[in-house]
Amino acid sequence: MTAPHETTDPGHPVESTRDTSPEALEQALEAAAAATGPFGDLNPVDRARMLRAVADALDGHADELVALADAETGLGSPRLPGEVRRTTVQLRMFADALEEGSWLEAIIDPADPDAAPTPRPDLRRMLMPVGPVVVFAASNFPFAFSVAGGDTASALAAGSPVLLKGHPGHPATSRRTAELVEKALADEGAPAGVFTLLEGMDAGTSALTDPRVKAAAFTGSLAGGRALFDIANGRAEPIPFYGEMGSLNPAFVTPGAVERRRDEIVTGFAGSAALGAGQFCTKPGLLFVPAEQATELEGALVGALGDKGPSRMLNDRIHAGHHDERERLASRPGVRVLLRGEDGAGEAGIGAAPTLLATTVSDLLADADALLTECFGPTAILVAYDGWADLLAAAQAFDGNLTATVHAEEDEAGSVAPLWRILRNRAGRLLWNGWPTGVAVTWAMHHGGPYPATTASLHTSVGMTAMRRFLRPVCYQDTPESLLPDALRDTNTLGVPRRVNGTLTHDDVQR
Amino acid sequence: MTAPHETTDPGHPVESTRDTSPEALEQALEAAAAATGPFGDLNPVDRARMLRAVADALDGHADELVALADAETGLGSPRLPGEVRRTTVQLRMFADALEEGSWLEAIIDPADPDAAPTPRPDLRRMLMPVGPVVVFAASNFPFAFSVAGGDTASALAAGSPVLLKGHPGHPATSRRTAELVEKALADEGAPAGVFTLLEGMDAGTSALTDPRVKAAAFTGSLAGGRALFDIANGRAEPIPFYGEMGSLNPAFVTPGAVERRRDEIVTGFAGSAALGAGQFCTKPGLLFVPAEQATELEGALVGALGDKGPSRMLNDRIHAGHHDERERLASRPGVRVLLRGEDGAGEAGIGAAPTLLATTVSDLLADADALLTECFGPTAILVAYDGWADLLAAAQAFDGNLTATVHAEEDEAGSVAPLWRILRNRAGRLLWNGWPTGVAVTWAMHHGGPYPATTASLHTSVGMTAMRRFLRPVCYQDTPESLLPDALRDTNTLGVPRRVNGTLTHDDVQR
Repeated sequence: MTAPHETTDPGHPVESTRDTSPEALEQALEAAAAATGPFGDLNPVDRARMLRAVADALDGHADELVALADAETGLGSPRLPGEVRRTTVQLRMFADALEEGSWLEAIIDPADPDAAPTPRPDLRRMLMPVGPVVVFAASNFPFAFSVAGGDTASALAAGSPVLLKGHPGHPATSRRTAELVEKALADEGAPAGVFTLLEGMDAGTSALTDPRVKAAAFTGSLAGGRALFDIANGRAEPIPFYGEMGSLNPAFVTPGAVERRRDEIVTGFAGSAALGAGQFCTKPGLLFVPAEQATELEGALVGALGDKGPSRMLNDRIHAGHHDERERLASRPGVRVLLRGEDGAGEAGIGAAPTLLATTVSDLLADADALLTECFGPTAILVAYDGWADLLAAAQAFDGNLTATVHAEEDEAGSVAPLWRILRNRAGRLLWNGWPTGVAVTWAMHHGGPYPATTASLHTSVGMTAMRRFLRPVCYQDTPESLLPDALRDTNTLGVPRRVNGTLTHDDVQR
Repeated sequence: MTAPHETTDPGHPVESTRDTSPEALEQALEAAAAATGPFGDLNPVDRARMLRAVADALDGHADELVALADAETGLGSPRLPGEVRRTTVQLRMFADALEEGSWLEAIIDPADPDAAPTPRPDLRRMLMPVGPVVVFAASNFPFAFSVAGGDTASALAAGSPVLLKGHPGHPATSRRTAELVEKALADEGAPAGVFTLLEGMDAGTSALTDPRVKAAAFTGSLAGGRALFDIANGRAEPIPFYGEMGSLNPAFVTPGAVERRRDEIVTGFAGSAALGAGQFCTKPGLLFVPAEQATELEGALVGALGDKGPSRMLNDRIHAGHHDERERLASRPGVRVLLRGEDGAGEAGIGAAPTLLATTVSDLLADADALLTECFGPTAILVAYDGWADLLAAAQAFDGNLTATVHAEEDEAGSVAPLWRILRNRAGRLLWNGWPTGVAVTWAMHHGGPYPATTASLHTSVGMTAMRRFLRPVCYQDTPESLLPDALRDTNTLGVPRRVNGTLTHDDVQR
């Protein structure tokens, strides 16, 4: 289903999308449904081996993949090689987590005839795969949030087959990655149908409405994510829809921080806001600075951002969207243009240079609906605040975000505490004296947040806990050993952590 | 908001619902929103103390509560005293779980300059309360799934304030329980607004659509649950909606089990299906037995169920609904009436005696949409199957259920395995040689299942993991100790289990 398709149109260096036919989709759905049992029942060690084989295959073809992705996205080096590496590190981390076993959340309560208020049967609970998952890939990460990215890795780790709806922005990269994924999985003995690439929005939405599909994940725009969320919840059998839909990522700077780290903050913000042409869902979109220091910062920021020059954006649509959104923001009352980035330059005419707008908290709050919307690309707004009360009022105006950042000195922590509390309810990740771009793949990472950052604030799309999205609990009551999953048998053959009689242990169960 | 309201209408021994006014609702919402921060920030030990105080208050007024509930529901003794006890045991178990601390899912990844593919910042993640929760109470458990039931206990444990929409079937019981809950919480120093009783469907749906409400839980009918689910997901900011909407709870009996434990199975099934007038979401609604043994079982089951006699149902509406649904089922093609329970007898004219219908797998499958629907009350269907293939086909016809039961002998486990696998994908709890009524409150319990049993198959409404529904992760990056929650500081002052550098530990963090 993923054979390469060379276009002969010389005007397009990028291949076109080849829509998955209804017949191919039906075959993929049937295969995914059939694979659910065998794949989910594998020893986690076997699924871990399969994920590592996928990682090895991608690493082994990194140069080829990077060349394809560079032609399609212009993201270049070191970004693309780094992204391949991040993707394969992520696959291997999920493999490690699979072996560690706490993801199973195994809980065993042996029978207790003396339990209050009534005798207790033997109860054993663990998490099991939900079944086939549709993943809608993102445009801005052709590897880490695409075919073999975090959603795919976490779903496969959980034991759920994946139907991957490729992003039309990088079809050749998607097809080649999918070939490597499918081959690596097949070589390691994974059931057929565990992974299939789908192309075209029709195939994606058809899959989303199919009763055999049990969950969906998405990374992209708010409009797109909300439309798919509504479809998922409108089904006869609603399914969980994990949409990650972008974010404003406000950053707040205290007077003390400007005083002591002005240059560092200017350089850091400019680097983060302009990184990858601002095409990150974690791009810091608004920088709040003290009014009395705003003027000196304006000059420094214009200098730092002006030095960046234009970068190619991902595609025509994103380039045009950024242009329109930037102009819309620039035209709002009380908004000044400090730096207007050159537009349309560079390769393919889709370059964009950083733009810096400026306003005040009072103007921002007076026009919050218009100004507190994401501008995907290298545009940011500098917002002058007039004292702490002004700053807190601004923070309270935000809806859900993936991140919120504070730059302050440690001796200001007491003053910052109220701001920190406000931001905690509005963001998934709080940063102190850092910048939000760069999402580390670790156990503790949370890449999520209240709506509209995501459609499911209880979950993350990055980090080891992302597996939880594709797992549902099943409880076995008074079940003979032979009908229990390995993880719940008396003898802990898998060596996984289990809660037995309320206590975490790796020991066998004595009954 | 919960002052008792004595009706003077002599025709109604039960008090009427007194709708919460829009002004009172607004006050409750504002208070709940204001309480979110202070309540969520309490040391878990303090919230545990508050839950225990609620349990003590209910235990201290058990006789009064039981008398109120008996007048309103007719559930009598030993059921009602047992349910109060179950409710208070549940509150104390959540208190214990709070102190144990693993519910926080604290994860700490100290900074690692050598991490691949890039240096890692210090990342610390834990779960925090989502904010105010609306809980829609059930009619059939005036304590355990009502005002101070599992949803309330788990939300309060999680640190989320509760707006409890009382069920109109037991308003006096609800008001008195709410008074005791509010007083116990206030006496222990809980912030005002942490718990409020709402009355009337308008108040419930208004709360559900209010932006200050961040999650909802419901126990009741499929139609009611789906309607509220759609409202929750149609909001500008969608919120998680945890609906537990009932279940068919099929039970499958093998030839060997009939041969060796016929009387035990007959007695057990009759007891479970008729318990509490069949008004349990875990009532076994269908019993599958081998065709060759069906005739002998028919007689025995008719005898056992016939002996039960009529029981009062909860209210007119449920009584009428059971009548209509039973007659509808009885009139379907291929359905025979083995035992038609007397109807309308007893106190208040809302008694119902057990009804047993009979059909075959082939007739069931030919009319599955009509026959595979819940009949809430003391009606069950005996289904004769003709060999294993027939049995497996029947199992495959089920949608999501809370439970599925198999009665078999251990030497049949090999033959049962395919059935067990089918049921695992269709139920939240699998029982071996037991009966599904009676849901133990333990760590391992899972009271949930795929749609339409619930709207959120990843979660449970009973057991310690029910807290997870009201918690969202927050990640702190490079944050000074003074701005970290206690659970994430270097010194593990709370003594909770934490994953540090990938390993579960109770130790302090060395950085």
